[in-house]
Amino acid sequence: MELSEDELVAAISRVIATEDPSVLVGPGDDAAVLARGSGELVVTADLLVEDVHFERGSIAPHDLGAKAIAVNVSDIAAMGGSPRYALASVALTPDVDEGWAMELAGGMREACLEYAMSLVGGDTNRADRVVIAVTVTGEVAPGQAVTRAGARPGDAIVVTGMLGGAAGGLALSRSPDTIATVLEQPDGRSLLEALQRPTARVGEGQTLAASGATAMMDLSDGLAKDLSRLCAASGVRARVHLIDVPVAPALAEAADALDVDALDLALGGGEDYELLATLPADLVEETATTLRERFGVALTRIGEIVDGSGILAVDADGGERPLAASGWDHFG
Amino acid sequence: MELSEDELVAAISRVIATEDPSVLVGPGDDAAVLARGSGELVVTADLLVEDVHFERGSIAPHDLGAKAIAVNVSDIAAMGGSPRYALASVALTPDVDEGWAMELAGGMREACLEYAMSLVGGDTNRADRVVIAVTVTGEVAPGQAVTRAGARPGDAIVVTGMLGGAAGGLALSRSPDTIATVLEQPDGRSLLEALQRPTARVGEGQTLAASGATAMMDLSDGLAKDLSRLCAASGVRARVHLIDVPVAPALAEAADALDVDALDLALGGGEDYELLATLPADLVEETATTLRERFGVALTRIGEIVDGSGILAVDADGGERPLAASGWDHFG
Repeated sequence: MELSEDELVAAISRVIATEDPSVLVGPGDDAAVLARGSGELVVTADLLVEDVHFERGSIAPHDLGAKAIAVNVSDIAAMGGSPRYALASVALTPDVDEGWAMELAGGMREACLEYAMSLVGGDTNRADRVVIAVTVTGEVAPGQAVTRAGARPGDAIVVTGMLGGAAGGLALSRSPDTIATVLEQPDGRSLLEALQRPTARVGEGQTLAASGATAMMDLSDGLAKDLSRLCAASGVRARVHLIDVPVAPALAEAADALDVDALDLALGGGEDYELLATLPADLVEETATTLRERFGVALTRIGEIVDGSGILAVDADGGERPLAASGWDHFG
Repeated sequence: MELSEDELVAAISRVIATEDPSVLVGPGDDAAVLARGSGELVVTADLLVEDVHFERGSIAPHDLGAKAIAVNVSDIAAMGGSPRYALASVALTPDVDEGWAMELAGGMREACLEYAMSLVGGDTNRADRVVIAVTVTGEVAPGQAVTRAGARPGDAIVVTGMLGGAAGGLALSRSPDTIATVLEQPDGRSLLEALQRPTARVGEGQTLAASGATAMMDLSDGLAKDLSRLCAASGVRARVHLIDVPVAPALAEAADALDVDALDLALGGGEDYELLATLPADLVEETATTLRERFGVALTRIGEIVDGSGILAVDADGGERPLAASGWDHFG
């Protein structure tokens, strides 16, 4: 396989391109948007494969089930939609016992309750790796779905929450000598929680959509890579002020012990499931106030959209350099 | 894993049971049915894992892509619904080349066109086995979805088409010494086609639903096992007249060469994707005429529903014996 994941997805998208006028947003965005009578249907699907996306020994089945739901809900949130139903197809290995499977299902159920959704079906199979395929359907008001393609020069670039926590959790889970030290720190455990129990930003996504976001996506593969996708979809360039990137405090605290660069993880680490959006610069302050008051979640301006392509990183001295889209590539 | 697939699904279904009044049909049927404004949404998901559900060397990627769509469409058909959109998440192995992936996508596209659907999204990943997870959403007129649970004593049991062809194709693909002989027979190739390019009975399912079918499901795991599930869901017993079970003619012809019992494969072989339904006995003839005229497809009465549980097989002499639910069990 010589192609990158993005190149392969682009090639497949050309093969499966549809002329169907009811497909308002097709393959390539966080979720598809389908015209359906009075409302619009939003659908997304995601596949988690053992030893690629998770290690069975490193995450409790309950957390794994909840995460499999949450990462799909995050794609619905990134369109400004409301999740409604989930389907989960699961392949189990012969050595998985009933208790593990029940815990997995219990975690899915808990996440569905958390997001006011129902788990309505799926498929159970056998395989030599655990595979979890989840589909989530949701709703969005007509014309309100926010794609990746609407960013315009002059827009501000914003992110919800703090970045790099999940990557910090991954580094921590792979550092058996360090884990005790870090978990003693006040926020140490939050790194593992960021990795194992991510929260989808549903209300935040709806608020951003209603507040005039011009483009939006969720951060699954890291800010650098995901922002480069947003820029490519919109045909624009991003300037990111590195000093403004909100690094998860627990990551900053643990960086020395983990021997990692916190900013690198905040830029390149995946699985934060925060929202990345663009919106007119004069709307940032009011939108940030709304998110803080309604959800207790920060909205941080990290840069602006300009003409061109790719990403420019601006350092504290005002120096600019191109930022590689070095987030996590499944095929990298 | 000590539980059978059905036991595990039942246990999981208890964990994820929902009180959501909009979930008209939840886990455990061919597809879920969801109330949504003026119409009803039908959704189903299925997972195909390399070396469990298919062998990469035994099926062309184009056929595999088409089959992955068709088996999900079949679940929508089994509710009496119309398929509308598909999502496909695919995990590819490092040794899969771009051409293989494009052929797979092309097969999905062709099947979507065949069933008047659009492929609207999904996910592409890496794994050490090829995994294909498809979700299909569709529509059904309010109150018209046919579940597995409505069979009543006195109903006739019917099946569309001919049975055992896919199992014959599987036996054939595993008999390298025989394959040339069988493929010389007039219908020999149809066995492989039944396995590799199954047809979902969409129009037939809608016709059966409109004609008063009381219960319906598709035959994915074999008549014996699937009928036992229908009986369990409906709380009834089935009497099956073995002489009336429609054995695929090509299977009957090839049985000697393949050293298989054609009736055994028709009863126990999976993946035919024909429809199994029950309906009032006085409606069978008219419904069969309609299916033959509209679709050129046979509808065969193979028995009747009585009080009790399980399946009774009636042989040509009128002798009765219990029929084990010996279809293909993913966990067997």
